[in-house]
Amino acid sequence: MLRAEIIAIGSELLTPYRTDTNSLWLTERLNSVGIEVQIKTIVGDDEAIMEESVRDALKRSDVIISTGGLGPTEDDITRKVFARVTGRQLTLDYEVLEGIRHRFASRGYQMTPNNERQALIPQGARVLQNPNGTAPGIRIDQDNKLIVLLPGPPRENQPMFIDYVMSELERMSRGVRIARRVLKVTGLGESALDDMIAPIYKEYTNPVTTILFTDSEIEIHLTATAETAVHAEEIVLELTDKLEEKLGYYVYSTSGEMLEEVVGHQLRLKQFTIATAESCTGGLVAERLTRVPGSSDYFAGSVVSYTNDAKARLLGVSEEALERYGAVSGEVAEAMARGVKQRIGATIAVSVTGTAGPGGGTDAVPVGTVYIGLADELVTSNRRLVLPGDRHLVRWRASTAALEMVRRRYLV
Amino acid sequence: MLRAEIIAIGSELLTPYRTDTNSLWLTERLNSVGIEVQIKTIVGDDEAIMEESVRDALKRSDVIISTGGLGPTEDDITRKVFARVTGRQLTLDYEVLEGIRHRFASRGYQMTPNNERQALIPQGARVLQNPNGTAPGIRIDQDNKLIVLLPGPPRENQPMFIDYVMSELERMSRGVRIARRVLKVTGLGESALDDMIAPIYKEYTNPVTTILFTDSEIEIHLTATAETAVHAEEIVLELTDKLEEKLGYYVYSTSGEMLEEVVGHQLRLKQFTIATAESCTGGLVAERLTRVPGSSDYFAGSVVSYTNDAKARLLGVSEEALERYGAVSGEVAEAMARGVKQRIGATIAVSVTGTAGPGGGTDAVPVGTVYIGLADELVTSNRRLVLPGDRHLVRWRASTAALEMVRRRYLV
Repeated sequence: MLRAEIIAIGSELLTPYRTDTNSLWLTERLNSVGIEVQIKTIVGDDEAIMEESVRDALKRSDVIISTGGLGPTEDDITRKVFARVTGRQLTLDYEVLEGIRHRFASRGYQMTPNNERQALIPQGARVLQNPNGTAPGIRIDQDNKLIVLLPGPPRENQPMFIDYVMSELERMSRGVRIARRVLKVTGLGESALDDMIAPIYKEYTNPVTTILFTDSEIEIHLTATAETAVHAEEIVLELTDKLEEKLGYYVYSTSGEMLEEVVGHQLRLKQFTIATAESCTGGLVAERLTRVPGSSDYFAGSVVSYTNDAKARLLGVSEEALERYGAVSGEVAEAMARGVKQRIGATIAVSVTGTAGPGGGTDAVPVGTVYIGLADELVTSNRRLVLPGDRHLVRWRASTAALEMVRRRYLV
Repeated sequence: MLRAEIIAIGSELLTPYRTDTNSLWLTERLNSVGIEVQIKTIVGDDEAIMEESVRDALKRSDVIISTGGLGPTEDDITRKVFARVTGRQLTLDYEVLEGIRHRFASRGYQMTPNNERQALIPQGARVLQNPNGTAPGIRIDQDNKLIVLLPGPPRENQPMFIDYVMSELERMSRGVRIARRVLKVTGLGESALDDMIAPIYKEYTNPVTTILFTDSEIEIHLTATAETAVHAEEIVLELTDKLEEKLGYYVYSTSGEMLEEVVGHQLRLKQFTIATAESCTGGLVAERLTRVPGSSDYFAGSVVSYTNDAKARLLGVSEEALERYGAVSGEVAEAMARGVKQRIGATIAVSVTGTAGPGGGTDAVPVGTVYIGLADELVTSNRRLVLPGDRHLVRWRASTAALEMVRRRYLV
């Protein structure tokens, strides 16, 4: 299997405020044609360190992709360092220069002299056009290795990578194709999940199975390798099917959708509309549902009722229920769901009430206690959860539990 | 100035799904005692590549921090590689082993043999206790350089770094202290900002000024270096004051607060309560306001009214206004704000109505058009914005504009 490495260049990537994220997208593309990323390096504008990194890279990797450091300012030393390491002279490419000059002129600006630097190209290298910026990319073929220098901004480097690099990578990696599936699971703990599926996936060395835990869900990544794309796809599907069968409704997605998208599909299919009534999540369930383009087809509205007063006035929750059961209770969760369903006039409604912390917990209702309510034409029900984590995590997990309660209710 | 490097270890960090983020936190700590990070490397479980990275690191850096790869599985080769590069034998530390065994026993588990691996320590190294996990950290002093191996999870490595590493770093970097300020600015474009402040900050080489653009705001980072913490603080404050004076109310924070926290301070100070009425932001303004712990003191509630029907039923927006001006209009934004204020019974209310896209735009109301409404005891007003970006960005920028409109209204 061919091995790649990625060098991200830019002093801002060595501060506490920014880090390289280009490599995630690039890795996905490289993996898709069977090329593995074996190391990533993040360097600033120190020439000696960059040079050492590039020399190491040339020794050990078949494909070297750099991002950043191609701009017009003094600090942008990428092209100089790569030219030196590959033993090439930098020469001014008049065609590139003309392109940059033209780009400035078309916007009514005069090109400043420092922009000439962007037209310096290592001898024998190929220029990669950049339709979305002034700095062109550079491709160097050296000792059967492929070196590609790309500008830093994703909207510049991604189209360039697709247009000028992918076909060459496919050619280089002929005979190795990769297929992937991601099963997203919610509502199961780590060890419970592993008990269920380890006997299945451990039978396979291809696909490779990786299990990742995120804030409120588990992702099972399956990666199959074969000589053709069709065969890789067959291999990955076989295990996907087995795992999906075993996990049943715990799997909510096998093709990368977010939970809110899956719920949206269900609602659209059933021609339902949904409303939410939220206390501790502060609107997060509504916000997640409306992240999905086109959600106005099924999302009706939401009431965030932080105070008891708002619960009574906007949702019609009775003062008796608030007093008798407390604001964080299954009864109030159900009353909130019924109230918002009726007042907004939606087919179904989901509600959340709880204590996200850090303050506000009691012995009876510790921080992290959350009730989810669900009301539709047939029934009203509620579910109690005690969620671990800080305020942010409790809110996120509660919103996931609310979406998941909707998904489970309308599986068929 | 001392130079550090960070090596993040773990195959999952070389997939498209995860990348190293530990280094951001570590960089902030290192910078705070005047130590610069000059390169970051991300490696998997390839021993040869890791060894090369560690050898390079020992040649060029004074401080080397690694995260990850200290667990009990076969892949965890960090301790082996560092022992080899520093020419030390790995020996079983019985005290550490006892600690791990005890940790398992206290949870009612038996320690599995592979956990013994975590008690292997390079000879002459020091063990760093890990109160939040089984894998201890390791400190190696070699040729006047400090090498620290930490486990991967932030909740394990952060307390260990603070407790066992920071004091040594302070000692090593004696004579270099750093002070920072971050001015957060919103409501100004990039070039307008630079026109205003470039003549001021260009007078200073210390502090160093870096300007970062995020989705809906600008951060001005000032970093001052001096021999004492007090002097560094004086230097950074001088420029902070000048910039703040020049930028006036465009600056909403000089000590790292989020916009929603700043608005929360204002509301608490005035003993106001706030309600929101949201259309295209889908609850995001409410969700941001309630991210802040203690926000229940001033956040009353919110209505998300996606449909015209919900705007009429829950907020009392007249059908005449909806028909005459359209749902995305200043008139409807004001009616929404007045409606939610009155129905929830809050002191002030802010509203958002707009088209976030990708569908739904017209010639008269293109995608990105957003009206913010504000109602309080005295007046009702609205503001029209046309925001660039995709659905996610338009929603985020609209929520920022809503919070900013509240902030500006109650500056004094």
